[in-house]
Amino acid sequence: MPRTIIVGGVAGGMSAATRLRRLDDDREIIVIERGPHVSFASCGLPYYVGGEIQERSALLVQTPESLRSRFALDVRVQQEVRAIDRAARTVRVRDLTTGEEDVVDYDTLVLSPGSLPAHPLIGADDAVPVVTLRTIDDVDRIVGSLASGATRAIVAGGGFIGLEAVENLARRGIQVSLVHRGALPFRPLDAEMAAPVVDELRTHGVHLHLADEIARVTRSGVVLASGEALDADLVVDARGTRPDSALAREAGLKIGDTGGIAVDAWHRTSDPRIFAVGDATEKIDAVRHAPTLVTMAGLANRHGRSAADAIALGTDAVEPAEPATGVAILRVFDLVVATVGASEAQLRAAGAPHRIVHTHPTDHAGYFPGAERMSAKLLVDPADDRILGAQIVGGRGVDRRIDVLSLAMQTGVTASGLSRLELAYAPPFGSAKDAVNQLGYVADNLRTGMTRTIQWHELEAARDAGATVIDVRTPAEVAAGAIPGSVVIPLDDLRRGQVPLPPGPLVVHCQVGQRGHTAARLLSAAGHDVRNLDGGYLTWLAGRTATEGTHP
Amino acid sequence: MPRTIIVGGVAGGMSAATRLRRLDDDREIIVIERGPHVSFASCGLPYYVGGEIQERSALLVQTPESLRSRFALDVRVQQEVRAIDRAARTVRVRDLTTGEEDVVDYDTLVLSPGSLPAHPLIGADDAVPVVTLRTIDDVDRIVGSLASGATRAIVAGGGFIGLEAVENLARRGIQVSLVHRGALPFRPLDAEMAAPVVDELRTHGVHLHLADEIARVTRSGVVLASGEALDADLVVDARGTRPDSALAREAGLKIGDTGGIAVDAWHRTSDPRIFAVGDATEKIDAVRHAPTLVTMAGLANRHGRSAADAIALGTDAVEPAEPATGVAILRVFDLVVATVGASEAQLRAAGAPHRIVHTHPTDHAGYFPGAERMSAKLLVDPADDRILGAQIVGGRGVDRRIDVLSLAMQTGVTASGLSRLELAYAPPFGSAKDAVNQLGYVADNLRTGMTRTIQWHELEAARDAGATVIDVRTPAEVAAGAIPGSVVIPLDDLRRGQVPLPPGPLVVHCQVGQRGHTAARLLSAAGHDVRNLDGGYLTWLAGRTATEGTHP
Repeated sequence: MPRTIIVGGVAGGMSAATRLRRLDDDREIIVIERGPHVSFASCGLPYYVGGEIQERSALLVQTPESLRSRFALDVRVQQEVRAIDRAARTVRVRDLTTGEEDVVDYDTLVLSPGSLPAHPLIGADDAVPVVTLRTIDDVDRIVGSLASGATRAIVAGGGFIGLEAVENLARRGIQVSLVHRGALPFRPLDAEMAAPVVDELRTHGVHLHLADEIARVTRSGVVLASGEALDADLVVDARGTRPDSALAREAGLKIGDTGGIAVDAWHRTSDPRIFAVGDATEKIDAVRHAPTLVTMAGLANRHGRSAADAIALGTDAVEPAEPATGVAILRVFDLVVATVGASEAQLRAAGAPHRIVHTHPTDHAGYFPGAERMSAKLLVDPADDRILGAQIVGGRGVDRRIDVLSLAMQTGVTASGLSRLELAYAPPFGSAKDAVNQLGYVADNLRTGMTRTIQWHELEAARDAGATVIDVRTPAEVAAGAIPGSVVIPLDDLRRGQVPLPPGPLVVHCQVGQRGHTAARLLSAAGHDVRNLDGGYLTWLAGRTATEGTHP
Repeated sequence: MPRTIIVGGVAGGMSAATRLRRLDDDREIIVIERGPHVSFASCGLPYYVGGEIQERSALLVQTPESLRSRFALDVRVQQEVRAIDRAARTVRVRDLTTGEEDVVDYDTLVLSPGSLPAHPLIGADDAVPVVTLRTIDDVDRIVGSLASGATRAIVAGGGFIGLEAVENLARRGIQVSLVHRGALPFRPLDAEMAAPVVDELRTHGVHLHLADEIARVTRSGVVLASGEALDADLVVDARGTRPDSALAREAGLKIGDTGGIAVDAWHRTSDPRIFAVGDATEKIDAVRHAPTLVTMAGLANRHGRSAADAIALGTDAVEPAEPATGVAILRVFDLVVATVGASEAQLRAAGAPHRIVHTHPTDHAGYFPGAERMSAKLLVDPADDRILGAQIVGGRGVDRRIDVLSLAMQTGVTASGLSRLELAYAPPFGSAKDAVNQLGYVADNLRTGMTRTIQWHELEAARDAGATVIDVRTPAEVAAGAIPGSVVIPLDDLRRGQVPLPPGPLVVHCQVGQRGHTAARLLSAAGHDVRNLDGGYLTWLAGRTATEGTHP
């Protein structure tokens, strides 16, 4: 009977194991897991800390026993694969409880070891406890710490896990300080899109220490690089990770420049008998078509299943993995944040040309009660109108739109093509012109040159070059907040020509960009050199808040 | 200055008018509307009846005055175009308040007259009032009727508008009877998918008169075709509509076999100076690639805008309209119902081969609190794995999945390809293997022959042919309800081989189909002829409820 050994019993590894069993009942399948638990809900860990998931048992989706009885899997926990002998097709396995080692042979091997903290925070023995948020043991320690009276926590790292840790600790009534190296939390968001996240964290009493990092962990808390000392009972280390590729590297398997295990589209490593999936492996970036690291549970599960297909059925029978858009979603208190593809910051850093679209649509028809406004951003390749990335921040309906945008990227729908998508509409659920269609309309107007826009961060330079800023909103809107120095001419007065216009280039703006577009068309038809402020006052305000808040 | 006349000032007509103005400031644009209102929220009308939209003014998105000042549109309400003289390029317009007629010439004409009741219900003068739910006047009459003490209403027609009317009248505390010609309400749903809708209506106290219709309207209510008399203070006629294509027909424009105005992919009628959009026109069905009628506001708006592009920029500069998937969503009390493409009933009637997939996924990870189960159905072309249609009934997350499925159909993602879509996941929002991925997994297993399934309505025939039905659920699940005559062998006992199996073909089933699949794989590997009951006990139960409920 052929034998497949799977290294790592969570997400990708366990998806491979159960799929392989369903494909092939005449195969020995051994799953070797370093930790004491397999198939646990790793994405649920923060929510157990916060108490939203109340039962610890809910995190343990399967046990070695249930996997044996249902899938005839030989699941060995607290065992570690120490080395691979590719020539002999064996792995050396150490029992972490007894220290004994054993050599087990394989026909195929699947590596799903996951990731590790890139630079683990380590305090002295008497320092406050430092915990990651990666395993059942981790959350047991955090929950234990809260139970024994911890009231102040420091979270290091404002990425996915960091922000989930912040929310869930705050939900427990803990005073939380977030220490984040970047100027704004959640790097996949550009500055003006991250501004609402900062607001949301502050609204919920989170202390932000941005553009700073932990220099050392002390007996009373931490000392930051800036010199500031923060007291705490607990430090949660949620900073960056790196692929756990040491075993693969030592076995001579090819490791990519990203540090991840290099695999082909069927998840084969440089040794065709060894497959690898999950956070330890490289993916192909859907935007750059180059290797990248994407540590998403969805990809790990899907690729684990696909690796099983390739093992049981042969690669000819299996569709190759598609490039990863990196679509992601995150709840930050009452805010929903979602991203896909590249950010403006990434494109700028890469010197990649890009068009930008900002909109502020509602999740459903404005005339139907309870409509929630979201802020959306689309990044487009000017050469071919290809969607390069998108960001959405809001509430209800953000999940739906990011999925549509991710799928549009995966299937090659152009930015303008978003305007022609047929999406479900009834007043409680959407708009006849959906938020995604609206992004497409603006993108199409940019593509055809029907509209010219200017970004919030380009406004000062335009003014310095002599442009006049015209605010076409209503007096009530202007009274609630305006761009200093702009000339107020409500849109309907502009149409009537009641107000004389200054000479020279014009920048028009409204609240969200829509009336500004109408104004720009009108003034352009009248012979003016005019641009519309993309995303209107709301995007400008978010951009200003983001930059002023972080560069005081 | 060129002149464009637009007939019909709602949805498609008004989208065309405002877009045309933004494209071209040097054009006379006249909008002629039969009714007293333009640009009203027609999809919102039922919710104003129900009081969820509280302000009547919220329905009036624009007025002739606001459209004049902002877009320089010449909007003429309560005027009707009586005839088109295509040779002279003129329309004859009657002022409905004065009766005076005028002849106005045009360079281009856009027809957006909408639809009409196919067979209007008409009572005698002294009969209870019969109202449609199509205009502001209609809702004024309904709300007036409620204000003057109406307590019992009959809704004729269980389609979109009918079900929205039912919900909203019930919300007002009105006793509602629904009279629907079909055996089950909401024809886009197949029987087993409509069963929850019937439950939901009954739970909310709605009296159902299915497979029946109104024979006549009387002084006290209605008499049904079955002979039953129902008392009522008000009848809402929400039965089928037909395209309002009389004006186009009389002008000699080509009318399709559907009765809708025939247009090309740029919304041009058989006269290239005359465009037509919205409910009066034919669309191309994305499944059959043949003309069809789809009366959706989203398409009307999008096509109106696109017609303006074609008029101002020329058809060469405009992408052709894509075939319509007919994606639709509907709230029925606490239930969300969504459909796209063809139903099983339609495919059967057309003799089109199809595979069927039923699943019952949750909207987000099962271990995270508040997960809501939905029922999903996918219809697939066995020849090329193309998605032919989908139906989803549930709560939260239905809107998101139907949009992904609609977009998959529009972009040619195959049913198996759904398994490889990268969708946004975090525990509050989804699953690592999303509901849509799960549909893809089952579809892929069917495509490759890895699983063979049987539909709920095929079970009796299989039994008659000698199949034994094995229920692999837990004793607790079985105790809560089971398929009569099935043999209970919990999945884990099946693996252990503790129970002897009967000879002959087997049908296995679990609650939703997933464990049944594992069981089928296991038994198949052991040499049995086995099929999995698609969608498990839940789909079988829904199917039985639907058929027993309607054929007592």
